[in-house]
Amino acid sequence: LPRVAVVMGSDSDLPVMTKAIDVLKEFGITPDVSVASAHRSPDRVAQFARDAADNGIEVIIAGAGMAAALPGAIAAHTHLPVIGVPLSGSPLQGTDALYAMVQMPPGIPVATVGIDAATNAALLAVQVLALNDAGLAKSICDYRVQMATRVEQRSQELQKHL
Amino acid sequence: LPRVAVVMGSDSDLPVMTKAIDVLKEFGITPDVSVASAHRSPDRVAQFARDAADNGIEVIIAGAGMAAALPGAIAAHTHLPVIGVPLSGSPLQGTDALYAMVQMPPGIPVATVGIDAATNAALLAVQVLALNDAGLAKSICDYRVQMATRVEQRSQELQKHL
Amino acid sequence: LPRVAVVMGSDSDLPVMTKAIDVLKEFGITPDVSVASAHRSPDRVAQFARDAADNGIEVIIAGAGMAAALPGAIAAHTHLPVIGVPLSGSPLQGTDALYAMVQMPPGIPVATVGIDAATNAALLAVQVLALNDAGLAKSICDYRVQMATRVEQRSQELQKHL
Amino acid sequence: LPRVAVVMGSDSDLPVMTKAIDVLKEFGITPDVSVASAHRSPDRVAQFARDAADNGIEVIIAGAGMAAALPGAIAAHTHLPVIGVPLSGSPLQGTDALYAMVQMPPGIPVATVGIDAATNAALLAVQVLALNDAGLAKSICDYRVQMATRVEQRSQELQKHL
Amino acid sequence: LPRVAVVMGSDSDLPVMTKAIDVLKEFGITPDVSVASAHRSPDRVAQFARDAADNGIEVIIAGAGMAAALPGAIAAHTHLPVIGVPLSGSPLQGTDALYAMVQMPPGIPVATVGIDAATNAALLAVQVLALNDAGLAKSICDYRVQMATRVEQRSQELQKHL
Amino acid sequence: LPRVAVVMGSDSDLPVMTKAIDVLKEFGITPDVSVASAHRSPDRVAQFARDAADNGIEVIIAGAGMAAALPGAIAAHTHLPVIGVPLSGSPLQGTDALYAMVQMPPGIPVATVGIDAATNAALLAVQVLALNDAGLAKSICDYRVQMATRVEQRSQELQKHL
Amino acid sequence: LPRVAVVMGSDSDLPVMTKAIDVLKEFGITPDVSVASAHRSPDRVAQFARDAADNGIEVIIAGAGMAAALPGAIAAHTHLPVIGVPLSGSPLQGTDALYAMVQMPPGIPVATVGIDAATNAALLAVQVLALNDAGLAKSICDYRVQMATRVEQRSQELQKHL
Amino acid sequence: LPRVAVVMGSDSDLPVMTKAIDVLKEFGITPDVSVASAHRSPDRVAQFARDAADNGIEVIIAGAGMAAALPGAIAAHTHLPVIGVPLSGSPLQGTDALYAMVQMPPGIPVATVGIDAATNAALLAVQVLALNDAGLAKSICDYRVQMATRVEQRSQELQKHL
Repeated sequence: LPRVAVVMGSDSDLPVMTKAIDVLKEFGITPDVSVASAHRSPDRVAQFARDAADNGIEVIIAGAGMAAALPGAIAAHTHLPVIGVPLSGSPLQGTDALYAMVQMPPGIPVATVGIDAATNAALLAVQVLALNDAGLAKSICDYRVQMATRVEQRSQELQKHL
Repeated sequence: LPRVAVVMGSDSDLPVMTKAIDVLKEFGITPDVSVASAHRSPDRVAQFARDAADNGIEVIIAGAGMAAALPGAIAAHTHLPVIGVPLSGSPLQGTDALYAMVQMPPGIPVATVGIDAATNAALLAVQVLALNDAGLAKSICDYRVQMATRVEQRSQELQKHL
Repeated sequence: LPRVAVVMGSDSDLPVMTKAIDVLKEFGITPDVSVASAHRSPDRVAQFARDAADNGIEVIIAGAGMAAALPGAIAAHTHLPVIGVPLSGSPLQGTDALYAMVQMPPGIPVATVGIDAATNAALLAVQVLALNDAGLAKSICDYRVQMATRVEQRSQELQKHL
Repeated sequence: LPRVAVVMGSDSDLPVMTKAIDVLKEFGITPDVSVASAHRSPDRVAQFARDAADNGIEVIIAGAGMAAALPGAIAAHTHLPVIGVPLSGSPLQGTDALYAMVQMPPGIPVATVGIDAATNAALLAVQVLALNDAGLAKSICDYRVQMATRVEQRSQELQKHL
Repeated sequence: LPRVAVVMGSDSDLPVMTKAIDVLKEFGITPDVSVASAHRSPDRVAQFARDAADNGIEVIIAGAGMAAALPGAIAAHTHLPVIGVPLSGSPLQGTDALYAMVQMPPGIPVATVGIDAATNAALLAVQVLALNDAGLAKSICDYRVQMATRVEQRSQELQKHL
Repeated sequence: LPRVAVVMGSDSDLPVMTKAIDVLKEFGITPDVSVASAHRSPDRVAQFARDAADNGIEVIIAGAGMAAALPGAIAAHTHLPVIGVPLSGSPLQGTDALYAMVQMPPGIPVATVGIDAATNAALLAVQVLALNDAGLAKSICDYRVQMATRVEQRSQELQKHL
Repeated sequence: LPRVAVVMGSDSDLPVMTKAIDVLKEFGITPDVSVASAHRSPDRVAQFARDAADNGIEVIIAGAGMAAALPGAIAAHTHLPVIGVPLSGSPLQGTDALYAMVQMPPGIPVATVGIDAATNAALLAVQVLALNDAGLAKSICDYRVQMATRVEQRSQELQKHL
Repeated sequence: LPRVAVVMGSDSDLPVMTKAIDVLKEFGITPDVSVASAHRSPDRVAQFARDAADNGIEVIIAGAGMAAALPGAIAAHTHLPVIGVPLSGSPLQGTDALYAMVQMPPGIPVATVGIDAATNAALLAVQVLALNDAGLAKSICDYRVQMATRVEQRSQELQKHL
């Protein structure tokens, strides 16, 4: 049963959102993936959000661009934590999506990550799940050691080539 | 029966949105006024929007601040024209609300007016209704003549005092 | 007789504005299309706006970039609703056009849609006309059902391919 | 034992961050509260973050202004989810803090809420904890019903007074 | 006969625009002052601009806020140089007016000065007139010597008080 | 003898600034063209500005990008009107150059045109010179009639092809 | 003999720049303080910068607002490091000054600190001087220990009062 | 022994940061170059900064993009002057990195140069070192004469080709 849902406002968002899917799989989590639009299919969004907890979903990642209402619309219908990924791709370069996600009114939060930062959205979801999953917690620690090692390696390679 | 609805995301928006109510009344239109939040009372917003046309509403004016999803959420549930008033009052001074309203995805438009521009929202609603109401059309023309005359008067007063 | 006029500040705006024309035709409305510049041919703009209502026009869509005065200049000379499409294409990416359109002074509103959002401008025009045209109202509802269905289909296709 | 830590970059941030403390208490959670600066006391920040999980902390809320490195610096030293509250109060009105928090590089996410949105930071923390605490989950649902009811009441009061 | 015209979009702009009037008088130029709105009294603006040269006006200073179309609308109807003063006072703090003035399309320039910079607008007008008025040219040079001297005096006073 | 000088901060600015040169030539004015940097060759800039009036220059057009100090540095050393062209080409897309030019302190104005708007800079220079040159004034009027005619032609062509 | 010069574009900048003077004195450095304007007294600025090294100055702190050319103008005439303090106080809230300082062209750097951050400008000057002054280096380390201690104290006081 | 360290947050920053390395070498300084991430390898960054002075480093240049915490994290652990290079490459075009660097809290300054301005970072480092190195001081003066000469040559070439 998927513990994380990845929703995007349009299938054209897949090239960015696929990074979230890949990272989740890297941590052994196969997400439920769907397309749903807060404006073009609002009832579907509401229904999805209302059913999410009963369907075993624990964290929802929602990516959208422009007047990116999707994560907020989902958050309004569920008490599960919702992670928003503001997408660039409009002339406003994602500041529209960022503001439309992060500036939620008091009462309904959206955990917003950086513009196009689907990787971080997935890692944040894993960190939340790891609160009650020692295996995942260990995986995150390993992942971070690898990141630090990779930085160190790159530094040494760079020094060799200069 | 009210032909225009004025909705605001919070009763703290009334000081700005009351300008819309006043202008509408000036044109003989008593609007239906309510508070509804796209995030805190989403079902109420959806229900309101779905019922609006059947309730005789022809134009909906929605004012909201921050991640101002209200006009878009209403527009998603009705084919009536929705006019959005982005409200300032957050540290981002209304650019958040402006972007969250005007940058709607293709398919569901919101007719956005200026930041805090509730007066213009009401005038726009009147202009829409005037398409099939010769009396209203005449009232707008009169209103405009008065505006032009007032500008002229101010100019003459200013020239006297210099 | 055309019920909608589509005006653009330069013929280089056609690639974006053509989306408005196409959507209008999809709804059975053949718009009056023209090029007129608030700054380079101001008298023509004023004349066009003053004559619009008498020529049977009910809604005017105006697209312009940079210091995009066109929709406001038209709105100043007619009581018809004017829909503004701010166009990107300058180094300021359309924020100049957006601000120059949406921030109209009290008295003369412009119904502003998103940057380059000519599709939504057309849909908004149709929604306004639909207030007194049950056929158009039905067409919008059909259009929306199709959009929702398309989102659902895309979601299912995406799930198959993952 | 506190399950949530609230950290702020300066004690001058307390008037905003106190909202987070109050909301947490409303949900029966007494947070660990401290002042720590990513730039003025970096070792203390690193130590705090490294020890947090062992000290029973599950979620960390960090508020900071300007070049708001605090949540990122904490996140770099713990696998616990870190919620960032960008604070206004500089001439850039909190956009500096927002960008410095939300735009984290791939690998180390910060769950960013709105500018000065300490209330939402607390609610987000509660939503995360509620994933494994049915009592908290029920409390959130109750909280939301109360919010929706309050919106409805305000709407009725407003209609009476117009 | 006035050689410079000072026009403002609203009489509420007088507190800023009066600085232009004062500077002009300091240089012995009594301007023609008026209120005219590109949107509320467009015909008056066009008429004013078309007549300006025949009325002996050589330079036009136009101040306006928000979607500040006034200087561009004047410039469209005259070959005289038009100096634009973008006014703050909206939530966008004058960036709206700045963009709406300075980003004129090719063909019709507006000589834009800083936000609320009515003093500089007047000095620029004087510098233009001075091209054919040796007395004015000398006055500008004197004015500048006085400015430099005042800076020097302030520097010495400050050094005394430290 | 050249009546207009065109200065640019770097020879890499020529592709934009050449538009100013071409327009000036179209009006029969052969400008004095040079490269000078407010920061890399400040003494040359000061000397150029101090000598400009004596060398017969009447209007100076200065184009620069980034922290575009060139027009202000020139204006500080001459009473001739200085027209600034903010150039894009940095990551800030010309807003840096725009702010660095238009926001001059009281006392030393720069007549700023749009980002990369070298054409308008040249036209503004011609409009200033035309104040005392009936031939140039007539040329501007002709130029404008041609512009309006071209807009009209484009409109007719577009209508034919739709 | 002063080793640091503090220059400001206007004596109205003193309330902010006085923080730099105070911090320098705290480190035993009495700065040379003056007012000089890149635009109103450009020759004085150039002379000051050319003479600075010979006058024993090692680091120059320059504060200015709006089109803040002062630090760049000084940097253009000296090889000493120049620290720029962008000042708020215009409608653009210091973004104009920030961009006009930090975006220097290749060749002439300005070491820019935060908006109104005169304290940090002074500390940066001290850090530069400390490279060859072991006493100053020790003072900085002491200053930092005190800062860290103060943060710790505030944290403990806050915990007591909650 | 290297007197300058060049650190970058990722090896993908090398194409920009290499300009700093090249300029330093041009002045006879071979920098210590490394990759280190404030968020992915925070302990390595802290250790590097704490050891820098003892390792003979006098000035540290740190380039980073997005929530660019690197220079501030280094500055927090050393009293050496730290020069920050904000890097573009995110949808926010480097404004995120600029704000995250320049807006440091009082106490810990970062000497920020322009977006992607690695050349200027190196020159600033050289200017700091030149305070106690007459040879370097002379080299800077020569470098500047060459820059001014090159500007002059470009100007003459441009005048020939027009």
